[in-house]
Amino acid sequence: MGESGIGSVEDIARRAKGASRALATLSTDVKNRALAAMSEALPVHMDGILAANARDMKAARDKGVNDSLLDRLMIDKARVGSMSAALLEVAALPDPVGEVVKGWKTPNGLRIEQVRVPMGVVGVIYEARPNVTVDATALALKAGNAVILRGGSLAMASNLALTKVISEAAEAAGAPRASIQALPTADRESVNRMIKLDRYIDLLVPRGGLELIETVVANSTVPVLWAGAGNCHVYVHADADFDMAEEITINAKVQRPGVCNAAETLLVHRDLVESLLPRLVSSLQAHGVTVHGCPTTQTLPGVVPAVDADWSTEYLGPEIAVKVVDSLANAIEHINTYGTLHSETIITKAYDAAQVFTAQVDSAAVYVNASTRFTDGGQFGMGAEIGISTQKLHARGPMGLTALTSKKYVIFGSGQIR
Amino acid sequence: MGESGIGSVEDIARRAKGASRALATLSTDVKNRALAAMSEALPVHMDGILAANARDMKAARDKGVNDSLLDRLMIDKARVGSMSAALLEVAALPDPVGEVVKGWKTPNGLRIEQVRVPMGVVGVIYEARPNVTVDATALALKAGNAVILRGGSLAMASNLALTKVISEAAEAAGAPRASIQALPTADRESVNRMIKLDRYIDLLVPRGGLELIETVVANSTVPVLWAGAGNCHVYVHADADFDMAEEITINAKVQRPGVCNAAETLLVHRDLVESLLPRLVSSLQAHGVTVHGCPTTQTLPGVVPAVDADWSTEYLGPEIAVKVVDSLANAIEHINTYGTLHSETIITKAYDAAQVFTAQVDSAAVYVNASTRFTDGGQFGMGAEIGISTQKLHARGPMGLTALTSKKYVIFGSGQIR
Repeated sequence: MGESGIGSVEDIARRAKGASRALATLSTDVKNRALAAMSEALPVHMDGILAANARDMKAARDKGVNDSLLDRLMIDKARVGSMSAALLEVAALPDPVGEVVKGWKTPNGLRIEQVRVPMGVVGVIYEARPNVTVDATALALKAGNAVILRGGSLAMASNLALTKVISEAAEAAGAPRASIQALPTADRESVNRMIKLDRYIDLLVPRGGLELIETVVANSTVPVLWAGAGNCHVYVHADADFDMAEEITINAKVQRPGVCNAAETLLVHRDLVESLLPRLVSSLQAHGVTVHGCPTTQTLPGVVPAVDADWSTEYLGPEIAVKVVDSLANAIEHINTYGTLHSETIITKAYDAAQVFTAQVDSAAVYVNASTRFTDGGQFGMGAEIGISTQKLHARGPMGLTALTSKKYVIFGSGQIR
Repeated sequence: MGESGIGSVEDIARRAKGASRALATLSTDVKNRALAAMSEALPVHMDGILAANARDMKAARDKGVNDSLLDRLMIDKARVGSMSAALLEVAALPDPVGEVVKGWKTPNGLRIEQVRVPMGVVGVIYEARPNVTVDATALALKAGNAVILRGGSLAMASNLALTKVISEAAEAAGAPRASIQALPTADRESVNRMIKLDRYIDLLVPRGGLELIETVVANSTVPVLWAGAGNCHVYVHADADFDMAEEITINAKVQRPGVCNAAETLLVHRDLVESLLPRLVSSLQAHGVTVHGCPTTQTLPGVVPAVDADWSTEYLGPEIAVKVVDSLANAIEHINTYGTLHSETIITKAYDAAQVFTAQVDSAAVYVNASTRFTDGGQFGMGAEIGISTQKLHARGPMGLTALTSKKYVIFGSGQIR
């Protein structure tokens, strides 16, 4: 990237900071009108968007890009329709900005309010999916933030076309001009510049594979909000209801195995080795799941021996690691050692076991007698989510609009001094 | 540091993680008993603590360390008494752990609770003040965390003596053995190792100068909570009450100029150039404050011309930058451009100006008609504080016990699957 290009990343960030000042005090009505205008504009500009995407698709095919990546890159009328619908869904969510989180009076008469405010400027770094352009912008804007979009090079034409349509619509509806901007280049250097611009950018949201996230986290001076990997566990306690244990195990593993809240390891209490373990293993196998088993589990038909790496693996597919544990304490120890501390569940009838499991498992979401698959902004009733955080600071678990906000103190006095 | 030393930083962190599991579910009663036992143990071991400090002081004097640093390093009976009292104050604070922050039921009958939990392992990196050993440990422990202490090399003997006393007292009162540990070395390498141990350490709290904080922030893979610098502003609007403007300006600047919530810049509306500015400037000068003035302010007697760097300077002493601004908007623009976004105040009688200032100033604490000096955990009614954050993520403004906690979701089901 030449000098002018380097300048432009900073110029874009500086303009975003300026826009964020005005966005911070924009009324909910204007923000919602902007989101509605963006929603309307997408189908109006359908032909241009599809044409831009066709150019990206052709270039990607010429490069020999694989089918699953091509699918992520592809936009058709239905997908533009989904983006358009998502904008209206975000418009319908409550505005997090302005919430008085806490408020009190001090003995000397100061009235202190802790108020929810926008983060400021949010940078989104993503890969091949052009829908992130629209979905991430909708959430950032609703939370009162300016957004800087840096999509992958494969989707460049699609992203610029989408950004042009939604940013013009937002501006016409009353949002500041620089509320929504895309970087004009998708090279590495643009990311390297962006993640050091803590003067202007308040938060980075990397959306994509583990490698992207790790690169951003390791090198950014801007705070990063990321969705963590999910090595989720189902633990079947000695007193579990057998039908419930089977239903939850199967649901957690096979209902949608490619997502972060799907189960990757099944832990079974030793008391159940003869009574339930064979049923769970054969049910998993009947659902097409390859079972990687501990020494005890390996004695069952069709089970592949598990190696140590299996306990740490997020298969994201029809495979599961199964281990027999001697006690609740061993199960918790295994989860806290090998898990990514995303979502775990215990199947039990025992009050005590439920209390101990939920208290001692150090995960973002800890369940009793329910599938791990519920860790999701929509299922939790938050509406659209940015992702599911396994971090312990700021936002943990499903991240809704409030994850894109900060808080500040406003203090009303009448001449108080110390 | 040799191989054994490198091993030991990781061993200490691993043991801390183990202790944190037990600490997370320790009752408030046991934690408070541990804090009380630590408080009692300090005066009992007074002689040993003072002897260790005397060794540190002698070594520091032999090195030619300056007087202000020697004062920070010094412990006497009164200072040990303060540490002992601080432990009881923290014991008296409400326990943040276990708070159900939110709770609701989903349509399918899941009961979801968002519960406040300890962060896990907190690493404290500090410089010459041995009292941090005790104060930081008290807060970390009350919030259910294991703590790893890495103090400065000058205070090594003092810190190890204090750590031995409080960790033994805590263990005798029922806290896990590795709840409180100090690194046995104070070299750079021990910090470099510590800030990369995100496997075991959940949060780092650097307590000390800007250089220490910047080094930790730039290189740590562990999340960092830090207290930011305070370039705080007093803005006197055109309609301000003159007496209040003078009282607050003087209080914010001179009551304790060495702290982060003291004022460093005074902005005065142009309408007040003849009526109030001379009074404010001469009052500041009468209080021994050197005034660095903008071109208009420079025309007053004894005012030093301000250079651009003055607007960004945290003097932390009897100096102030004074600038005449044309409007409220200019004042806000100046603050958002040059400030560290810590604490700012407007002096005004106008409803509108108060609304605009509090909405548009992007600071952790924004005041109307009160001194910036109130940004403080004690003044806010939080009790002891870890510092004042100017970050926008996780904790902003005075950081009390909750800043050392995380939240997790606990979900109670009855067999729900998706």
